[in-house]
Parts: sequence; structure tokens; C-alpha cells
Amino acid sequence: MTPPFLAAGRGEPVDRTPVWFMRQAGRSLPEYRAVRERHGMLAIVRAPELAVEVTLQPVRRYGVDAAILFSDIIVPLVGIGLDIELEAGTGPVVREPFRSADDLNRLRPLDPEADVPYVLEAVRLLVKELGDTPLIGFAGGPFTLASYLIEGGPSKTYARTKALMYEAPDVWGDLAGALAQIALSSLQAQVAAGAQAVQVFDSWAGQLSPADYTRYVLPASAELFGGLSDLGVPTIHFGVGTGELLELMERAGPSVVGVDWRVPLDAARARLGPETAVQGNLDPARCLAPWPAVEEGVRDVLARNGGRRGHIFNLGWGVLPQTDPDVLRRVVQLVHAP
Amino acid sequence: MTPPFLAAGRGEPVDRTPVWFMRQAGRSLPEYRAVRERHGMLAIVRAPELAVEVTLQPVRRYGVDAAILFSDIIVPLVGIGLDIELEAGTGPVVREPFRSADDLNRLRPLDPEADVPYVLEAVRLLVKELGDTPLIGFAGGPFTLASYLIEGGPSKTYARTKALMYEAPDVWGDLAGALAQIALSSLQAQVAAGAQAVQVFDSWAGQLSPADYTRYVLPASAELFGGLSDLGVPTIHFGVGTGELLELMERAGPSVVGVDWRVPLDAARARLGPETAVQGNLDPARCLAPWPAVEEGVRDVLARNGGRRGHIFNLGWGVLPQTDPDVLRRVVQLVHAP
Repeated sequence: MTPPFLAAGRGEPVDRTPVWFMRQAGRSLPEYRAVRERHGMLAIVRAPELAVEVTLQPVRRYGVDAAILFSDIIVPLVGIGLDIELEAGTGPVVREPFRSADDLNRLRPLDPEADVPYVLEAVRLLVKELGDTPLIGFAGGPFTLASYLIEGGPSKTYARTKALMYEAPDVWGDLAGALAQIALSSLQAQVAAGAQAVQVFDSWAGQLSPADYTRYVLPASAELFGGLSDLGVPTIHFGVGTGELLELMERAGPSVVGVDWRVPLDAARARLGPETAVQGNLDPARCLAPWPAVEEGVRDVLARNGGRRGHIFNLGWGVLPQTDPDVLRRVVQLVHAP
Repeated sequence: MTPPFLAAGRGEPVDRTPVWFMRQAGRSLPEYRAVRERHGMLAIVRAPELAVEVTLQPVRRYGVDAAILFSDIIVPLVGIGLDIELEAGTGPVVREPFRSADDLNRLRPLDPEADVPYVLEAVRLLVKELGDTPLIGFAGGPFTLASYLIEGGPSKTYARTKALMYEAPDVWGDLAGALAQIALSSLQAQVAAGAQAVQVFDSWAGQLSPADYTRYVLPASAELFGGLSDLGVPTIHFGVGTGELLELMERAGPSVVGVDWRVPLDAARARLGPETAVQGNLDPARCLAPWPAVEEGVRDVLARNGGRRGHIFNLGWGVLPQTDPDVLRRVVQLVHAP
């Protein structure tokens, strides 16, 4: 039988709603923190046996319907030689941010087997360990990756990123296109190694107006999903604060659109075509509440989907570090048997 | 003749679209920076002649259709004795964040003439100086003020704020209600002193789902706008990332709903009643672009309003510090004579 996560991702009927959690691997799990006491984040990514262990932890503990590779969206950029660190509490820090057209020369196509062999090795090991549980591969979307390269790290305003978009649309277009190609190569290799679905995190795309998204991001994202469609696996397109962009993110060509907690799932479905599956969308902060409030939130999400095909339950964004793992375990049980 | 800003705020016809900019006072102006070299932000707020000078600077330079008092949404909370600082680059920092029901005892009703006399003195002085240009008074909305008190400052996730909402809805309700009353008292006093319109900045309300906004914030905001309606002045209700909340923020009872840049103005108007005016909504980052891109953005906002009554032109959020003041001057000219 097709695993429920894959069936839902294809809009096929399921006998239970599948569920996994963005950032289920890492952050809130004590067994992850134990690993992190001895290893940095990128060190774990580069050591396949550690990445495998950390990826499996939430599958064991929660019984989620999918595993997601422990990695980071900047890993392919590190693989082609950019100097980027992951700083705890901050996120990616790019030592020499992109400032002009010349910086495009610092990008080159990704050769996954040569540049990020540890990622593919982890995927291969995981697929053996996971049995029937599908593994999700992932990559960063063009706006989000470009914003890290241009801002040098996370930003409140994305002012430099947008300024480059407006000032030098050709440079921007080349950058977004190159990043989409890197993401595509990475995802193709992850699927070839055994990943059974992929998610593109264009996490910060919601910073753009629909007109700017259409002009500056959609072409690159459409190329990316166009390439992915040949792989025959469910493809998920996600960002936060994207209520106004859902139709445009759908137009890029994924089979599943991820929805953050701000958009009620029934409203999201009304904006999307009937063939498109949805993923989401409990507010991660609700998992900090007493159980009755969590339960109410989970039931509300399920009710808003109204039993329609093509729903993958998830949070509306990543697990918060202070989340009690036992709450997530109960959420999985509730989604499976509401 | 009624100044265009006030006419538009009431949905009356205007002979030109009025325009002002959130954070027009401060930040990007060299004449403001000169003042800031000698005085802290709260010191300026507390010295009426300095607050007047800084408030007038953008009116002189840009020819905007309204002035907005130089102050901060935390000022009434400082006035009732809370230890809050404004740290440059960070924002409000609350020395002892609210953690339990007992902390509610640290709030008391605001007595504006006794607690924030300098604010009212600045308003009185400004009204004399401004002539026909209306002065906007402002206050923070309940979610945003509560979030600063609970988080201790700005937050990425609002996890503590939401956890309190879900765990202790009665405590939350009392807190939101008390903050709405403080905002109401402050705005009543500002209008009594001569302010001709008011804006409520519930800047971070867009962090909530519509269901949570309806349950946890709308009651307090409706009380606030209910009280304001007696004042007979245009009332503006604004937050960022509020695409899904616009109808709910309208339901609170303002005469104008502020729209951030993520929601095209025509889409925003379609979600709001025909009697409700709108304010916005050029992406502030677009003002960092070369002039043709700025002009295109301004014309797009105007075109999306389509000449309907009840439009106050503004950015979709505050002026970015790196903005060239000359660009804002040209934006005002273009909005006035497109």
C-alpha cells in the first residue's frame, strides 16, 4: 500500500491523515540536544551516521508519517565553496555577502556527488533504515537563498535583497536562476539516492507583494518545479506569511502547497485548485498550550480541511525549541485517530 | 476646506490624494539624526520643544498632508511607571517582563495630564505650528503592547505571548483590556489637546490566525475603537502581515484600515466595506530603488485604488532608515500630481 504521506501528496485517498512536523529533527528533542553538545550543526550534516541518527529520532519518538533529512538549505551553497556558518540562535551567516554582479562568479553549478557526498550518503543510509516511512529531501527556494547571500544572514526588512531586485533586475534574475538550478540539482540527487518526496522552503518569499513575487521569483521557481516534475515524486512548496502568494506558489508547479497558520486551511483550499494538495497548518505556538487548547487547534485544522483528499497535517512553521516532545507525540496520535 | 487627509479619512471627496509616511519623523532624516546625536529617543519625547521640532521636520521637507507626533507606543506604559527603554536597533526592552496574573497589578489606568504631560504639551504646541496640516495622534494596539510586556522586547515567534493567551485566557483578556483602556485614555487626551486623527498600531497582530485574533484581540480592540468613535475624528487601524485579518480589524470599528505592501490595494478594498477608507501601501523597500521603479510602484498603488474615495497614500510599513529623503519628497509630489 502507498504510504499515506505519499498518497496525500498525490491527492489520492488515505485511510488516515498523514502528519510530520517541520523541524521535527532537532531543536526540541533531548536526544538531539545530547548529540548537539558534542557536534556543531554542520558537523552533523557532514557526518552521515550522525545525520541519520538525528533524522530518525523524531520518527521513533512520534511515529510521524515521513522523515525529513537533517540538513540545512545553505548546505549546497557551502558545498560549492561559499563561506557560510550556521550560528545558533541566529541562522546562516555569510562571511562575504553578495553585493554586485561580480559576486555571481562565486556561484557555480552543484555537482552533488562531489560537492555534498555526505548528504547523499545520509539519504542512502536512511532509506534502508526507514522501511515504509518515506524520506523527504529538501532545498531552499530562490528568494530565501538569495536573501541570505545578499543580506549576509537573516533580515527583518530584506531591504538589500529588494534593492538589488529593483536596481539590477538582470543580476537578480541570474542569481535567482542559478540558485534554482542548484536547488534542482540537489533535489534530483536526493531523489536518485532514495528520497521519495521533496520540499522547497522559500521561507521568506512572503516578504514580497504578489506583483514582485510574480516578476522576480516565480520564473526561477517555475523552472525549479518544472525540473522536479520529471522525478515523479510529491513536491511541496512552502513559505511563511504567504497568504497572498498561495496561488502564485501553486502556479510554480508543485503538487502540494504548504500553508502557514495565518491562513485558515479552508480559505487556503478555496484559493488553490482542486488538484493541489495542501500541507499544514497548526500554529507552532499552540503546541506550548495546555493539551485541551492543542487538541482544539488540531481538530480545527482537520475540520477546515473537511475530509478532502490531499491534506498532509503539519505545523504552520517549524517546531519551536521550547516544545514538549510529548505534545507532538499526542498530536500525531490525534491526527491519526481524531 | 477640509484638509485632504481628513476628508479621505472620512471617505469624502478630495482634490488630491493625501499622503504621509509611517516613521516619517525620525530615522532617515539628517536633521533628525543631528538631534539624536545629542538626545536619546525618550529624551526627545519628554522634551516638548524637541518633539515638536522632530515632528515638523518631515512636514517641512516633504510637504506631507499630515504630521504624526514623534513618540512611541510604549510611552504611556513608561508614564504609568513601567521600566521600559528604547534601545537603538532593537526596540523596546522591558526590564521585568510580565510572567503571571500578579503582573497585572503593575498596570494602572493612565492619567494623561499627570503621567505624560509632555506628550500633550507637544500636541498643543504642534497644533499651533502646523496650521492647516492635521496632526495624527497614536497609540499601540493591545496585542502589540502585550507582546512587548510579555516577551520583554521584540520577538520572532511571540511564543510566550501566545502561550499566555492559550494557558490563561482570563489573564490575557484582562491584560488586553487594560492596555486598550490605556490606549484609549492616551488618544482621548491627544485629541482633546488638538490631534485631528488617530492611528492604532497593532503592528504585530498579523502573527495571529483569524480565529485567535477574533477571540483574543478583537474584543479589546473593539472597545478601544468604540471609545474613539465618540471623538469624531478619523481613526486608523494598522498592522503588518494582516492580509487575513483586514475584515476583523475593520470590524473593530476604525474609519480607516491600514494595509501593508503584501496585499494589493484592490484586493484589500474588495475585502473591506465600501464605507471603510484604506491607507497604504507602497513597499518601503521600493523607496531604495532607482526612481523609475519607485514611480512604477507609486502609480501601481494609485491605479489599484482606481480613484475611489477614502484612500490615504502611505508606505506599507515604516520608512527604512537608509531611505534617501529626496525620494520621499518626489513620492509626495507624484501622489499629489500623478
